[in-house]
Amino acid sequence: MKDNNQKIKLWLKNNQSKGIRLLQKLVTEPSKQGCEGTSQAIIVEKCRELGLEIDIWEPNGSKLFNHPYFVSPRTSFIDSPNVVGILKGTGNGRSLILNGHIDVVPEGDDSNWTADPFSAKIIDGKLYGRGSTDMKGGNVSLLLAIESIKECEIKLKGDVIFQSVIEEESGGSGTLASILRGYKADGAIIPEPTNMKIFPKQQGSLWFKVSVYGRSAHGGTRYEGVSAIEKSMIVIKEILKLEMTRNASISDSLYKNTPIPVPINIGKISGGSWPSSVPDLVTIEGRMGVAPDESIENAKEEMLKWLDKLEEIDQWFKKHPVKLEWFGARWVPGTIDLDHDLMTTLKHSYMEVKNEPPIIEASPWGTDGGLLSAVGNIPTIVFGPGTTEVAHYPNEYIEINRMFEAAEIIALTILSWCEVSEVQVDSLN
Amino acid sequence: MKDNNQKIKLWLKNNQSKGIRLLQKLVTEPSKQGCEGTSQAIIVEKCRELGLEIDIWEPNGSKLFNHPYFVSPRTSFIDSPNVVGILKGTGNGRSLILNGHIDVVPEGDDSNWTADPFSAKIIDGKLYGRGSTDMKGGNVSLLLAIESIKECEIKLKGDVIFQSVIEEESGGSGTLASILRGYKADGAIIPEPTNMKIFPKQQGSLWFKVSVYGRSAHGGTRYEGVSAIEKSMIVIKEILKLEMTRNASISDSLYKNTPIPVPINIGKISGGSWPSSVPDLVTIEGRMGVAPDESIENAKEEMLKWLDKLEEIDQWFKKHPVKLEWFGARWVPGTIDLDHDLMTTLKHSYMEVKNEPPIIEASPWGTDGGLLSAVGNIPTIVFGPGTTEVAHYPNEYIEINRMFEAAEIIALTILSWCEVSEVQVDSLN
Repeated sequence: MKDNNQKIKLWLKNNQSKGIRLLQKLVTEPSKQGCEGTSQAIIVEKCRELGLEIDIWEPNGSKLFNHPYFVSPRTSFIDSPNVVGILKGTGNGRSLILNGHIDVVPEGDDSNWTADPFSAKIIDGKLYGRGSTDMKGGNVSLLLAIESIKECEIKLKGDVIFQSVIEEESGGSGTLASILRGYKADGAIIPEPTNMKIFPKQQGSLWFKVSVYGRSAHGGTRYEGVSAIEKSMIVIKEILKLEMTRNASISDSLYKNTPIPVPINIGKISGGSWPSSVPDLVTIEGRMGVAPDESIENAKEEMLKWLDKLEEIDQWFKKHPVKLEWFGARWVPGTIDLDHDLMTTLKHSYMEVKNEPPIIEASPWGTDGGLLSAVGNIPTIVFGPGTTEVAHYPNEYIEINRMFEAAEIIALTILSWCEVSEVQVDSLN
Repeated sequence: MKDNNQKIKLWLKNNQSKGIRLLQKLVTEPSKQGCEGTSQAIIVEKCRELGLEIDIWEPNGSKLFNHPYFVSPRTSFIDSPNVVGILKGTGNGRSLILNGHIDVVPEGDDSNWTADPFSAKIIDGKLYGRGSTDMKGGNVSLLLAIESIKECEIKLKGDVIFQSVIEEESGGSGTLASILRGYKADGAIIPEPTNMKIFPKQQGSLWFKVSVYGRSAHGGTRYEGVSAIEKSMIVIKEILKLEMTRNASISDSLYKNTPIPVPINIGKISGGSWPSSVPDLVTIEGRMGVAPDESIENAKEEMLKWLDKLEEIDQWFKKHPVKLEWFGARWVPGTIDLDHDLMTTLKHSYMEVKNEPPIIEASPWGTDGGLLSAVGNIPTIVFGPGTTEVAHYPNEYIEINRMFEAAEIIALTILSWCEVSEVQVDSLN
């Protein structure tokens, strides 16, 4: 066993340029929503090179589109394939899903980037570009882990199911499609950018929109109207109180260093049409965090009930109640037992590679881990090499050495979880 | 004198259809900004019919564009002429400017109107259409007043200077241009829609924009950012406090029935770009009322000083001060002495026609009266037949009988203010 681990360490050390080249190829293809095809082609090519059993399909069908957990602004995934590559085991071992999303968020305003957003340039050990940290670097860690095992001629008992999915950034319909296609395993790892922290619990989240009503009037006689902006201030204040109440009840020690475990973020506000008119409509849009052990439905109900109480604070809302809508993206929360064997295995591997205990926390955002846990019933851990702070931001980068560390930790986890096949070791001897 | 008044009453009674037809012609021409030409052509035709000395010109020149009181989104007034028609007196009388704007605000969403916004339909004594109340009905009152005097063959000592100006709705560059062209008088009346109230004082106003800054972050870790929306709530609260402070110092009895004499209206708010990001910029736009006896500069300075104090309330503003800008429209405040002879004259005429004392108040909005007073040094009263509540709103209308009442009151005011020329009466005898 120790021998295998040493072989993997050595192989990864000797094949750094190969891994970096793969990441560069992936980052230079802007796999934004609807344009995932070329990046997936690179993944397919790699899976073929590794001799994996390959499955490529464009998610579709009423089972997907009508699934209660389906969320997407899209009505078709033509030209946006999912890719799965399976390293078949010899049998009688635990299987592991290695899931990463290929889609990246838009680069935003080019002028905020110091270089081309898809340059994949390397400066001081950091590879820059949209998607480098979130999460093509993590995906390369997965592929390197599989390749290192393969190249070291280690046979596994259990299957390793590598998934390169679309649509994570819009609510996870790629992963949902892979679950509905029948992919199951005894555990899963998602290498989202966690700063090498281990996240056994993932916060869910959902987007909401609140419409706040007023009554129009000329600004010069504004007392004849009712300002939707002033009323929206009351609503925002109450939503912040709801956030406080919800977080006060969270005692999970994984959140002990988190100022607000499950935030409610007011992200957008818009209202009024003329400087000298009293505004009669303000809409606010935000993101409501859902605790790992909470249901989406419970979170929705708490918000609805809270806003219903507005009329107790201001009579105006009695006749002019706010309108609450849930729209856009949604991420299901997820959780795995802290003493689950996959946790123990991953922690041990981390210790072996890094010579220090891992930091274990709950994620402050949603991942496809929620769907794998809640819909697929697959115990899932989120752990990856990317830098949390630069995800979705200009000048996104990944620290290259972390990508190889994560690859090694994941490879060792695979060996331990899926078990090395004695048949293979015998035949090698 | 009494005879003349009776003649005018009779003439107006017998010529209602003539006045209504003129208003219908004017309302069916949508004289929105840049499209005033055809309405002005109708005015020119009427002025010619009345035998007035006519002056038609497109405002222009560096004197206008560089004037400190010039405010307009436009850089050219080609095809948007001002029209002035003068009824020359026999001499030695006081002159009077009768000023009305020909521009109308846009009709807005057609679907909010029960009929075509420029239909000029009459239902139950009300004539409907954009501009009917604000202020083509008032303009027709002016023309009817002149016509009745003319048709009754009454000669005046002083000049009556009828002005049909562009651009009132955008800050008054039409009236400013007429002042700069040299038009002066001993007094002025503007028949804006006052509900037949007499406004010796007019509130000024100016538009402002405040940019409030935050620091972006992911909504799941919103505590790492600073919400510009939350900071904007502090700013709005403080602006409302400024409004309270400013209004507490107003003791003018003309405002005794006005809940907020000089309001500061927050009309628009906009900020943030993504529901699950902490917003780093919110802009609020509003209208600051300026008291009739206050200078625009003083109002600006009070706002600036007030916002400078934000840092005492929240340290954030010390390093991230809000940005205050004055933009768009601006109306200069105006005032005439309550015991000015023009006030006395107008009040008497009102009493004679209506058999009840007029309501005297301060206007809750700006008019071109501010420019006539402040730049032209012309004592100005705002008094007109339109309905305040429907100005700028869908289904705008004017009560037709009020238009004729206002015409009679204004005609009588002209006779008294400009004085009837004895020469004329003699020659008639």
